[in-house]
Amino acid sequence: MFFASDNAGPAHPAILSALGAANTGFASGYGADPLTIAVTQQLREIFEAPEASVHLVATGTAANALALATLANPWDTIFCTPDAHIQQDECNAPEFFAGGAKLTLVGTGDKLTPDTLRTAVAAEQSRGVHGPQRGPVAITQATERGRIYSVAEITELTAVAREFGIPAHLDGARFANALVALNCTPADMTWRAGVDAVSFGGTKNGCLGVEAVIFFDPARAWEFELRRKRGAHLFSKHRFLAAQMQAYLTDGLWLDLARRANASMARLADGLRGIEGVRFTAEPQANMLFPEIPRHMHDRLQAAGAVYYLWDGAETGAPEDRLTLRLVTDWSLPEAEIDRFLSLARG
Amino acid sequence: MFFASDNAGPAHPAILSALGAANTGFASGYGADPLTIAVTQQLREIFEAPEASVHLVATGTAANALALATLANPWDTIFCTPDAHIQQDECNAPEFFAGGAKLTLVGTGDKLTPDTLRTAVAAEQSRGVHGPQRGPVAITQATERGRIYSVAEITELTAVAREFGIPAHLDGARFANALVALNCTPADMTWRAGVDAVSFGGTKNGCLGVEAVIFFDPARAWEFELRRKRGAHLFSKHRFLAAQMQAYLTDGLWLDLARRANASMARLADGLRGIEGVRFTAEPQANMLFPEIPRHMHDRLQAAGAVYYLWDGAETGAPEDRLTLRLVTDWSLPEAEIDRFLSLARG
Amino acid sequence: MFFASDNAGPAHPAILSALGAANTGFASGYGADPLTIAVTQQLREIFEAPEASVHLVATGTAANALALATLANPWDTIFCTPDAHIQQDECNAPEFFAGGAKLTLVGTGDKLTPDTLRTAVAAEQSRGVHGPQRGPVAITQATERGRIYSVAEITELTAVAREFGIPAHLDGARFANALVALNCTPADMTWRAGVDAVSFGGTKNGCLGVEAVIFFDPARAWEFELRRKRGAHLFSKHRFLAAQMQAYLTDGLWLDLARRANASMARLADGLRGIEGVRFTAEPQANMLFPEIPRHMHDRLQAAGAVYYLWDGAETGAPEDRLTLRLVTDWSLPEAEIDRFLSLARG
Amino acid sequence: MFFASDNAGPAHPAILSALGAANTGFASGYGADPLTIAVTQQLREIFEAPEASVHLVATGTAANALALATLANPWDTIFCTPDAHIQQDECNAPEFFAGGAKLTLVGTGDKLTPDTLRTAVAAEQSRGVHGPQRGPVAITQATERGRIYSVAEITELTAVAREFGIPAHLDGARFANALVALNCTPADMTWRAGVDAVSFGGTKNGCLGVEAVIFFDPARAWEFELRRKRGAHLFSKHRFLAAQMQAYLTDGLWLDLARRANASMARLADGLRGIEGVRFTAEPQANMLFPEIPRHMHDRLQAAGAVYYLWDGAETGAPEDRLTLRLVTDWSLPEAEIDRFLSLARG
Repeated sequence: MFFASDNAGPAHPAILSALGAANTGFASGYGADPLTIAVTQQLREIFEAPEASVHLVATGTAANALALATLANPWDTIFCTPDAHIQQDECNAPEFFAGGAKLTLVGTGDKLTPDTLRTAVAAEQSRGVHGPQRGPVAITQATERGRIYSVAEITELTAVAREFGIPAHLDGARFANALVALNCTPADMTWRAGVDAVSFGGTKNGCLGVEAVIFFDPARAWEFELRRKRGAHLFSKHRFLAAQMQAYLTDGLWLDLARRANASMARLADGLRGIEGVRFTAEPQANMLFPEIPRHMHDRLQAAGAVYYLWDGAETGAPEDRLTLRLVTDWSLPEAEIDRFLSLARG
Repeated sequence: MFFASDNAGPAHPAILSALGAANTGFASGYGADPLTIAVTQQLREIFEAPEASVHLVATGTAANALALATLANPWDTIFCTPDAHIQQDECNAPEFFAGGAKLTLVGTGDKLTPDTLRTAVAAEQSRGVHGPQRGPVAITQATERGRIYSVAEITELTAVAREFGIPAHLDGARFANALVALNCTPADMTWRAGVDAVSFGGTKNGCLGVEAVIFFDPARAWEFELRRKRGAHLFSKHRFLAAQMQAYLTDGLWLDLARRANASMARLADGLRGIEGVRFTAEPQANMLFPEIPRHMHDRLQAAGAVYYLWDGAETGAPEDRLTLRLVTDWSLPEAEIDRFLSLARG
Repeated sequence: MFFASDNAGPAHPAILSALGAANTGFASGYGADPLTIAVTQQLREIFEAPEASVHLVATGTAANALALATLANPWDTIFCTPDAHIQQDECNAPEFFAGGAKLTLVGTGDKLTPDTLRTAVAAEQSRGVHGPQRGPVAITQATERGRIYSVAEITELTAVAREFGIPAHLDGARFANALVALNCTPADMTWRAGVDAVSFGGTKNGCLGVEAVIFFDPARAWEFELRRKRGAHLFSKHRFLAAQMQAYLTDGLWLDLARRANASMARLADGLRGIEGVRFTAEPQANMLFPEIPRHMHDRLQAAGAVYYLWDGAETGAPEDRLTLRLVTDWSLPEAEIDRFLSLARG
Repeated sequence: MFFASDNAGPAHPAILSALGAANTGFASGYGADPLTIAVTQQLREIFEAPEASVHLVATGTAANALALATLANPWDTIFCTPDAHIQQDECNAPEFFAGGAKLTLVGTGDKLTPDTLRTAVAAEQSRGVHGPQRGPVAITQATERGRIYSVAEITELTAVAREFGIPAHLDGARFANALVALNCTPADMTWRAGVDAVSFGGTKNGCLGVEAVIFFDPARAWEFELRRKRGAHLFSKHRFLAAQMQAYLTDGLWLDLARRANASMARLADGLRGIEGVRFTAEPQANMLFPEIPRHMHDRLQAAGAVYYLWDGAETGAPEDRLTLRLVTDWSLPEAEIDRFLSLARG
């Protein structure tokens, strides 16, 4: 009954097998191997972006920090939500890679709105050289609360960015989960909606450790290559990154896995909805849920071995005898585990 | 009628003369000259801190950024208010000098409270290596809104810092203005109140350009020296920094100048208080005032040549036909100018 | 006939299998999984260093840059050879991770001597705050030219470091190749010889991508953890790094693979030694050789598909009709390929 | 008898007076004052460069580090001599401001030649993303050994830079000393000779502390402004930098002062030339001399209070009973002091 994170499950067997298939003889290092070339092409096709520059790294933090550093000057500020991974969970990696740039926290919670974003961007750079300059907007899809921006919402946010001449980055650590929920194309959710660069996640959705960074305008491709290398994120045996990504993308595996994770969450939410004492206002849109439950229910679940994080109760104003959980499902979670969790919750 | 800033007035004649007096023959460079040695001793005495390490720089941003970089690791976050100079007006200098550290904005406005500070500090570092680590607390005295922390308030804030084992820095760009308002000693307002390091301002109070950074525990003195040098802030003809600071400190000139600036503000506030249509809720505590006035009064003042900044009206909820001014007085402002301003305001 | 690098061959099947074996169910992320705990213990035992702090990363550049950044201040200079990987092949990663530290190139070529090192270290920091300060010594074992420091040589170098109070780092990208050549223990080649920290390579010797950083004094372990995280080098699915390293270490596989690579090089050198027109002054000590050959031999080898890099001819003073090759063997190179290369060389 | 440095003498009285003249009433801060505007224009005229961007800072290290950071990417290497101030005397400031760029030391000693430069530049960036990329060439005029590049020599060096598409920076801490020695125009010695940016020194030649950074192509002016601000090098009371520079430039004072310093050195060299036991192979070209003298002569000079630095004897191969001095003259050195030094040397 593991609901703590989608980065703790196993890799999908097809992805693991791809490592073995790639493990034959010698292959040029550092991305000059045929698999990397093939997967680059594959991603361009999936994104309907034949000119895009595509780069693989092994961690989501690397994808975000390197992408944002490429889009931001050291004297800029990056606009994101207070809940964003780049703010909460990367130990200042964006600041480090961007040479000391700042993060400006927009609004509250996990989602930007055009209004909060416009206000925040407008407020910066009003005093010439004294304050930080306007840097990229960082949108997280799905958000850290498992919510999803519609294509229209993304388009509105990037329109604000365009107003101010700043680029838009999409942190897609859960790109696939969002995409299948929206039932649109990768192009619709990104460049057609005004996004300039994407961190395209694989690790949370069945890979061992691989993410792609995609710039739809390839002008800064070489800069990114240099940033990746000096960030120590260029793999010598690069085929093992490429092989994962290739298997992930082949025959829509990435979409299947995301559908499974989202479906698991839907099943979990459906079950929880009917249980007395369980409350959640936001319906799950992807693979995360934050239900509030009585403490005794929590104690029972824990005692039975359920694994999950508590969300900060104070933040949601829950009384002390009630707790908010963060539940995350990944592709590999057996239905039986969900049902057992529900059964335990029912008491 | 210049009320725009206290960094735009002239240097005090005694400070200028000190440059001439220092300008005789050869003197060892880089702080090894007798004047620097003397002024170091003078500051230790004024602060009743015989062991303190004392370092001169030419700008307030250098003082703050170098001091904070010495107190913070690159993976830390520095706690300050949203209005703090280090957040608003230093173009990411603290982030740059601290190697990519973050600033966490505590509460709203210009003043920290023990509660908002404790909440903010407690919230960080709750997830091990993932989030930024707890770095120094940065207190501004007087604040960017011209308000003053009492000694008790500073002590309460540094007590919170002690709870979490983090150091406390005091940005004293307007140290003297605050000190004469509190009528306490420099030691009372700093190390006796738990402050670890101070940016001791001179530039805004009659110097050409000099600030002292003081660490009450000299353990990191050498690190600061290296940071200052590699930050390109070590002057070769160091005697010209020392001479300014020496004249500033001699015979209490620094206190006299601050009293003048504060008295000018008191006179201005007294005058404005009685004028119809002028409103200010916060009485001036040092040399700054933020009165709200009717737009026609503003137009009249501007037409007559009054110089000041508008404060963001939206922020204070002023209706559009009313404007909030930021008025700052320095030591050199003639009484006649104040009276002329008041006369114009009266209409 | 691939002799271009030891980072282009396949992973050893046992290491690949270990990924599959590790791929069962959920495992805590970020290094809190049982495999990581086990492999940490395993490395401590192999190094006879029960207190050592052990950290896994995926690239050799990450290992070096993060280790050196932990040992060096931003105002320090790191002492290394002109041929060192950190100088030649990491695109300023050490400077980046160390916050702008400098590299001082000691002597010429690929090996430090106590004399050249002492001279270089003594020459720095003679002018107080003005020059860079003395930072760590970086020793590469085996060197970029495939040469090996004896234990006595390492001890002499670290003794020089001790004289000046600076730490010693060992870049062991080819640690195993050197160890089996010296036929000593890991402890002998490192901490008993005065080394403070090691980059312990796995990638070039049969892994997909994993290196360990080991500090024999664990005092800076937490700092390293934070540096790794903010460097975006902390893997969420950390078990896949640990599994590689565990398989690599188990039953002496790492030593077997290194012996194979070295034996392949010995076979190659033995064959080349007797061929007319082939010259090499330095006998291979590990798995690299730099023979000088006639151009027509090179043309023949290339035409037949041999893959290797040319070494800078100018540097070795070779006449234009002669070329110096860099030949590297890895564990996977079939004997038949070596023999075919030799046969082609013979003409 | 102070010959230790040209950064230890007094400021010229006219420059000091200019501070007083500028010290009237209020002036906009941060470079928006009329004096700054005027001196910007003055420098453009002196350099015959009406489009140039001109920026004042207070230290030579700031001028160099900020200028080079503007010209270099963090993954670049900057080409300079081993003796360059940026390598020897700035405690890694260039590396810090340039975000971790490297310095490649070209040739030996204090002067670049087209051949050593071409070889060094050609050698970098031969391996794609792996090594540092080619960054700016940094030329020092006059050099750290007091030698001067002819205009033809500068032109040849910048031609090499052009070959490789990299910019050229001139560290002119002793710009004036070199200019009067060459008897050419500032334009001849800089942009007409292919130089892209100059650190134009004032501090060593009679100012209290001011340097100008000049970019002949103003495209990166705004970037420099931001770098200066976040480097904490933007002065609020900027008129006091401008006033110094204006007085320095007015009526050719800067040239007069440099001529005096150079003439003092010529007088010193003339005197030393005839003294038995004194040897110097390089005639002084500006205001520095490195004579080798017997130890007893040194002892006599020291006893009488002469102040100077010893140059590393080992470096010049001087026997132990002979020492090499570094003698520097500034504009303020009285002739009588020179003659007294010579008289003491004669014994």
